[in-house]
Amino acid sequence: MRTQVGIIGAGPAGLLLSHLLHLRGIHSVVLERRGREYVESRVRAGVLEQGTVDTLVESGAGERLLREGLPHHGIELRFGGAGHRIAFEKLVPGRAITVYGQQEVVKDLIAARLAAGGDVRFEVTDVVPHDMDTDRPYLTFGGERLDCDFIAGCDGFHGVSRPSIPAGVLTEYEREYPFAWLGVLAAVPPSTEELIYARTGRGFALHSMRSPEISRFYLQVPVDADVEDWPDERVWAELRARLETVPGFTLATGEILEKSVTPMRSFVAEPMRYGRLLLAGDAAHIVPPTGAKGLNLAVADVRLLTAALAEWYASGSADLLDGYSAACLRRVWRAQHFSWWMTTLLHTFDGEDAYGERLQRSYLDYVTSSDAAAATLAENYVGMPY
Amino acid sequence: MRTQVGIIGAGPAGLLLSHLLHLRGIHSVVLERRGREYVESRVRAGVLEQGTVDTLVESGAGERLLREGLPHHGIELRFGGAGHRIAFEKLVPGRAITVYGQQEVVKDLIAARLAAGGDVRFEVTDVVPHDMDTDRPYLTFGGERLDCDFIAGCDGFHGVSRPSIPAGVLTEYEREYPFAWLGVLAAVPPSTEELIYARTGRGFALHSMRSPEISRFYLQVPVDADVEDWPDERVWAELRARLETVPGFTLATGEILEKSVTPMRSFVAEPMRYGRLLLAGDAAHIVPPTGAKGLNLAVADVRLLTAALAEWYASGSADLLDGYSAACLRRVWRAQHFSWWMTTLLHTFDGEDAYGERLQRSYLDYVTSSDAAAATLAENYVGMPY
Repeated sequence: MRTQVGIIGAGPAGLLLSHLLHLRGIHSVVLERRGREYVESRVRAGVLEQGTVDTLVESGAGERLLREGLPHHGIELRFGGAGHRIAFEKLVPGRAITVYGQQEVVKDLIAARLAAGGDVRFEVTDVVPHDMDTDRPYLTFGGERLDCDFIAGCDGFHGVSRPSIPAGVLTEYEREYPFAWLGVLAAVPPSTEELIYARTGRGFALHSMRSPEISRFYLQVPVDADVEDWPDERVWAELRARLETVPGFTLATGEILEKSVTPMRSFVAEPMRYGRLLLAGDAAHIVPPTGAKGLNLAVADVRLLTAALAEWYASGSADLLDGYSAACLRRVWRAQHFSWWMTTLLHTFDGEDAYGERLQRSYLDYVTSSDAAAATLAENYVGMPY
Repeated sequence: MRTQVGIIGAGPAGLLLSHLLHLRGIHSVVLERRGREYVESRVRAGVLEQGTVDTLVESGAGERLLREGLPHHGIELRFGGAGHRIAFEKLVPGRAITVYGQQEVVKDLIAARLAAGGDVRFEVTDVVPHDMDTDRPYLTFGGERLDCDFIAGCDGFHGVSRPSIPAGVLTEYEREYPFAWLGVLAAVPPSTEELIYARTGRGFALHSMRSPEISRFYLQVPVDADVEDWPDERVWAELRARLETVPGFTLATGEILEKSVTPMRSFVAEPMRYGRLLLAGDAAHIVPPTGAKGLNLAVADVRLLTAALAEWYASGSADLLDGYSAACLRRVWRAQHFSWWMTTLLHTFDGEDAYGERLQRSYLDYVTSSDAAAATLAENYVGMPY
């Protein structure tokens, strides 16, 4: 069996890459370890940058996104008993975000691939990349062999792609945070029109949403927190304690559909290429979810990778492929910094001294009172230009 | 002996306060432990915010400052083999800084006080404030007694004012940094027109100046560095290694006039008042010198204190006095954060992991490429509005 680009992983990165390559006339096969139902229901991020929306719409997979996505023109930072709006329409005119669940993006991309006759294989076992350092790489899986020109590693942080690169090739940068997020999906209309990032003495909370009927919440919890320790009543009580901190705000409560604990980690592997294996998205880099950058970075990688492969097939030039990693990493490190910055700005840190707490508060006061400082948050949040 | 305001310390804060009070018809006596020659030659900061310049000029003590001060409309951040200009004229139009040594400000203020018949006493021993929690406070010194309506503690971090406040009244916030600055004054024309803040793998360096003939340099050194370990040849070699990092830049070297090691500390005591004792400047707060904020904060405090005392004498209202500490502390904490931010952005930290180093580089790249980020540096550096 043979294809031009063998893609490992049917998350947003792998699916979008396959679809964008298809639009350039390049054939690919997507190999996914999980079942279709699983990847379509995996609850992940839900904030799309303007450029991500544009990319999905231009790819033809954005019809439902345009219909059901919720455009937002600001977010609220809530601390010290007051809410402070970061107004995108004033700070970064013409740019906004769209709230739309990652699993909805995945559904739309799978539908688009299948409608176009794409080759997406689920529940594929034992995927292994071979001979990436030659010009005849191939993949083996479930007793089969897939010969490729290139392999795209889009299989996330825990995938097989990155570990298949020989020791010594990659430099890895990592930071772990001393807390985790408890993510909560609830069948309750959002109590806010825009996202609320709340910094309290009890820890951070985020009020997000998926639709006019479904709310999404996150709570800063200890790094070893167990979802069993968080019965629904405790979740609601803690969310109310962290969000009902401004006059007149009442949190609507209701049925909780899903709860999970997410560790907070920053990670980058450099370079994002080993011979004919190219990494994209979480396979190469992870950010804590505070800045909502993970999915958006994957889309940015895939745009660059598509352009690089298209140039190679069209002209034989490897210039863009050779520059792929460096081009990705410029945006990756900006997002790494922004995600670290949002995280340290809004969370409580055990053992932080009184001086550090006052610094954090001073920074929050500044970000919400200086147009320049607010614009640094806004321009990163809506996404730096490609 | 009696005065309206007894002022401890003849640094910029005490002298300016005395002079501004005089202009409002309020009598004061300034008591200084050191001799006049000592305070006039003590080398300290040299970057004046626009508001500081305006205040000195409006007070009538700015004639020489206007003639000899060097207006600067930008600074350079140098890292990664290139210089990046933070252009005030573009980022904060109409606002700039003026390079003029603190000891020159002190000379001008002493001259202004003496010309106006002011009472400034040098080499005064054993100053002790008494009964600050009554409405009849007084100072004793060298066997004399000075009755006052108010006492102004302008005697710096190591002065007697703050320690004279009973235990439990003040809350103190502090941060020490794991490095110091070696300050160098040299009889050599500056090799640059604007200040250069250099971040290198060898540590931070700053190229500043005092006049067209006198340069001022700072080197990040270990926290326990001894000036004896830094003979002139070593100073020049290290300055060249940290500053000659861009093509075409050559550092002029010459006679070194003075060397000293300055510890790096952040400190705030709250509130800045105890009864009739009011603290101003370094007596209440210290910043690392990276952001050039120490002298400028003292001037901002003194402006507020003058207005508060003038209101009290004019109308008997204590409203501004009661709000003095909170009003000062808003600016103080902004400057605390900015000074911490500039310090962490530009210094090397022993034991910093590779991820942290990349974050720092990413932040530097951002500050020098995003107008919004550059404006946050610029607006703080030239001074936030009063």
